[in-house]
Amino acid sequence: MSTFELAYLEMPGRAEAAKLLLISAGIPYDNTDIKWGQIPEIAPFGQVPYMVEEKEDGTRFVLGESHAIERYLARKYGYLGKNLEETAYLESICDNGGAMADKFFGTFMLEGEAKEKSTENFLQVVVPKYIKYHEEILTKNGTNGYYLRDEFTLAEFLNAQMIRLINFNSGKEVFSESKCPAIWKLFQNVMGHPHFANYFKESDAKLEEHRSILINARSK
Amino acid sequence: MSTFELAYLEMPGRAEAAKLLLISAGIPYDNTDIKWGQIPEIAPFGQVPYMVEEKEDGTRFVLGESHAIERYLARKYGYLGKNLEETAYLESICDNGGAMADKFFGTFMLEGEAKEKSTENFLQVVVPKYIKYHEEILTKNGTNGYYLRDEFTLAEFLNAQMIRLINFNSGKEVFSESKCPAIWKLFQNVMGHPHFANYFKESDAKLEEHRSILINARSK
Repeated sequence: MSTFELAYLEMPGRAEAAKLLLISAGIPYDNTDIKWGQIPEIAPFGQVPYMVEEKEDGTRFVLGESHAIERYLARKYGYLGKNLEETAYLESICDNGGAMADKFFGTFMLEGEAKEKSTENFLQVVVPKYIKYHEEILTKNGTNGYYLRDEFTLAEFLNAQMIRLINFNSGKEVFSESKCPAIWKLFQNVMGHPHFANYFKESDAKLEEHRSILINARSK
Repeated sequence: MSTFELAYLEMPGRAEAAKLLLISAGIPYDNTDIKWGQIPEIAPFGQVPYMVEEKEDGTRFVLGESHAIERYLARKYGYLGKNLEETAYLESICDNGGAMADKFFGTFMLEGEAKEKSTENFLQVVVPKYIKYHEEILTKNGTNGYYLRDEFTLAEFLNAQMIRLINFNSGKEVFSESKCPAIWKLFQNVMGHPHFANYFKESDAKLEEHRSILINARSK
C-alpha cells in the first residue's frame, strides 16, 4: 500500500480535501509543515501543497497543484464516480466550488476600496449564485447532503472544506442552515462524520492559532 | 459517434482548449455564441462555457465549467496520458497554467491603483515563476515543445491558448522566443499545426473584433 506525505503551510488551507479523502479511504499520510518563504526544492512549480507518494516498491511520485492532487487521490481510491460522465459531473461541481472559494481568498490580496468592492461582490453576487445552483443540484439528488447517490466523493469533501474555511476566516455565517439548507446538510455530513472527529479537533485548534496570526497581521 | 455543442461568448476565451482537442480528435462540434447577460437555462451553474454532448443513441450530456469540460473530452479521446500518474502530472500542468492565466484575467476586474499593482505582480512575479518551472519541465522532456513524450495532450492545448490570449489581450510580448524558448516551441507546435490552420484564421478575426470592443470599453 502507498503511503503519502502532504506538505502545506502550518495551517488548514488547500490540502484539506486531500486529507479527508485519505482518512476516509484509510490510507496513512504524514503532514509536513512548510514555512512561508521556505518552499523545498522538491515542490513542483515551487509551491504548496505538494504530495509525495511512497509506493510499496520504494518508488516515489511527486505531484503539485492542490486540485490535481485531490483528483489523483480521488480517482485512485474511488471517490470520483463510476464512469467518465459521473467523474466529469463531480469534477465540474469541484471546480465550481473551488472557483467560488478562490474569489473569497482573492479578497485577502487586496487593500482599501478594491478589497471592499471585491468583498461586497463576493457576498452579494458570488455566494448567492453558488447557493442557488448547488441547492438545486443537491435538492434534485434528494436533499440528502450528497451530490451523487448517497456516497462521499471529492465533491463533498472539497465543498464542505471550502465552506468551513470561508465561514471561519470571514468570521461570518456566509453559509448557514437557514441560507442554504441542502448545502448545510452536506456540510454536516462531512463535519459530523465519526471518521473525521479527531481530524477536525486538531484542525480546529490550528485554525484558532491561525486566527490569532491573522489578527496580529491585521493590527500591524 | 458523439457530436458536441460548445457554447461561449462571441469571442475566444475559455472554450479554446476544448475546441482544439475536438479538432485534433476529428470530432464534429458546433459553436453556440452566447450574449452577455443572456445565459440560457440549460447552462450548469448559470455560466459559460458549457458543453452539450449528443450521443449516437440520442441521449444528451450537459456539462459546465471549462476545465471540467476539457478534462472530460481529454480523457474520452486519449489526451491525458496512459495511466493515473501521467494523467495527474498533465493535469497539474494544466491547473498551473490555468491559475497563471486567471491572475492575468483577474486584473481586468480591477481599477486604478489596484489594477496597476495586480498587473505589476503578474508581470514581475507570476510570469517569471511560470516561465522558470515550465521551461524546466519542457527542457527535461527534450525541449521538443511537449510536456510528455512527443504527443499533443490537453496540457499543450491549454497552455498554448492561455499564452496566445495573454499576449493578444495585453498587447505585449509577455511570452516570446527570447524569454522562454522551450515554452515558445510548444506554442509553435500548437499554433503552427496544419490541423488548426482554419481554426486560428477564424479565431484571429474574432480576436481582432474583440480588441476593438475592449478598446471601446476602455475609452468610455
